[in-house]
Amino acid sequence: MSERYDIAIIGSGVAGLSAALNAKIRKKSFILFGNEELSTKLVKASQINNYLGFPGISGKDMQEHFKEHLKDMDVSITEDKITTIYNMGEYYSLMSKDNFYEAKTIILATGVNFGKPFKGEEEFLGSGVGYCATCDAPLYRDKIVTIIAYNKHEEAEANFMATVAKKLYYVPMYKEEVEVDESIEIVRDTPVEIVGDTIVKKLVCKNTEIETDGVFILRDSTPPAQLVPGLKLDGNHVEVDRLMKTNLPGCFACGDIVGVPYQYIKAAGEGNIAALSAVSYLDSKK
Amino acid sequence: MSERYDIAIIGSGVAGLSAALNAKIRKKSFILFGNEELSTKLVKASQINNYLGFPGISGKDMQEHFKEHLKDMDVSITEDKITTIYNMGEYYSLMSKDNFYEAKTIILATGVNFGKPFKGEEEFLGSGVGYCATCDAPLYRDKIVTIIAYNKHEEAEANFMATVAKKLYYVPMYKEEVEVDESIEIVRDTPVEIVGDTIVKKLVCKNTEIETDGVFILRDSTPPAQLVPGLKLDGNHVEVDRLMKTNLPGCFACGDIVGVPYQYIKAAGEGNIAALSAVSYLDSKK
Repeated sequence: MSERYDIAIIGSGVAGLSAALNAKIRKKSFILFGNEELSTKLVKASQINNYLGFPGISGKDMQEHFKEHLKDMDVSITEDKITTIYNMGEYYSLMSKDNFYEAKTIILATGVNFGKPFKGEEEFLGSGVGYCATCDAPLYRDKIVTIIAYNKHEEAEANFMATVAKKLYYVPMYKEEVEVDESIEIVRDTPVEIVGDTIVKKLVCKNTEIETDGVFILRDSTPPAQLVPGLKLDGNHVEVDRLMKTNLPGCFACGDIVGVPYQYIKAAGEGNIAALSAVSYLDSKK
Repeated sequence: MSERYDIAIIGSGVAGLSAALNAKIRKKSFILFGNEELSTKLVKASQINNYLGFPGISGKDMQEHFKEHLKDMDVSITEDKITTIYNMGEYYSLMSKDNFYEAKTIILATGVNFGKPFKGEEEFLGSGVGYCATCDAPLYRDKIVTIIAYNKHEEAEANFMATVAKKLYYVPMYKEEVEVDESIEIVRDTPVEIVGDTIVKKLVCKNTEIETDGVFILRDSTPPAQLVPGLKLDGNHVEVDRLMKTNLPGCFACGDIVGVPYQYIKAAGEGNIAALSAVSYLDSKK
């Protein structure tokens, strides 16, 4: 049986990092899920002018300052992508592809997916549309699968799925060079609509159509309603109060996921509040 | 007629500074009230661990980073203490001892007064208790006045009041040496209660009692309800929503004044939100 953490923080963007610092200062046991690069959005920012204390800093330099802060406070990042979180009443159960974790409280800081869902995506969710290829791989043995991937990291997912599926199409939504198994057919096109009857039949792209039994959409973050079943949303955002509480006891959220403005300093401030709210919640349960 | 600013920001603590950066970036005309030292609380902080990007920084060093940021963005501070702000419908009118200003929107970032009001303070407010000695000086010609001062800066107020009042008692609540006119009687004691019938009669201290016609309490910041008549409070704090809106149109608040946690990074995040909300409000009025 694995350790049950006081706090699980999902996301290593500014909000998640800020939350982690405060969990550390308050001496709670915690786990911070994300990646060593911290935030793919941050490093691409050419200049940030309104993070008080760092005039005209680049995202890249900011990332270095953040990494130094984590190192200084001995905060480490667990590079595991959480795909689903279940509210178990007294605690939360967090699932990744290969592992599961438990925590008394969770802090959601996974950012926002810019752009709308594809046409048909929500309609066929669970009927051929999914967000975790590896999790659902057994269902697609000897079938035709299409993966729409927003990050080069997902190539490993594709390679694994290719060992199970009869045929795998891979639609990269990123600019880096694609390096996948030779058996995988790379489709450089823009997805438009997922079409089917009771289940998915094809993915319609701008210039081509792909006949397929399943479509996996691997975005940088899982939509919050899929991530935590039962979580109350406000439009595309997680609904929170000023203390960053969601509708689920012990579940807090911060950063872009809770709404505009999408700004680093706002996310940092909310991470602070969310962590201190989680600490108060934990202390009230003692 | 003076310029009518788009935004007036009251307070040069972390929340006010963060708001100012965003007002500047969004190219609004604004005025930032405070003092060149930025925040008396900040410089006293020995170590701050949870301002993401600055591991284990001292308040003094943080202040230097903030000053550099203001300089870099060409943001200046107007050293004038705003004592009352009136909602004029289309705009706000801001009064200091010697000047008045107008702004279409205001952002309150004056922090919190730690500690409760003195016993009798709220009861006799306007009946012998006041917060701006110079403003009310004409009412105390040839009377006995007591000033409770939390900051050495207030010595100038005391010196002016001494030229009007018959007798002036000065109760310093700070540790620095007191340098006031010889005519002023310095009382080194701890105020306990303000006593009177329909008006103030005396100030009761721990070891002594002072017969007086008026008591001025000069804290570092004016309580928000006195600062902006009509402002809705939540306990001692200004009530705001997640976009930092108060109950008054065009009036926003951020930082410690809107509630716990009292943390720098939280204040910085809220300053960002408040400024962007003010910008949206201004744009909606175009």
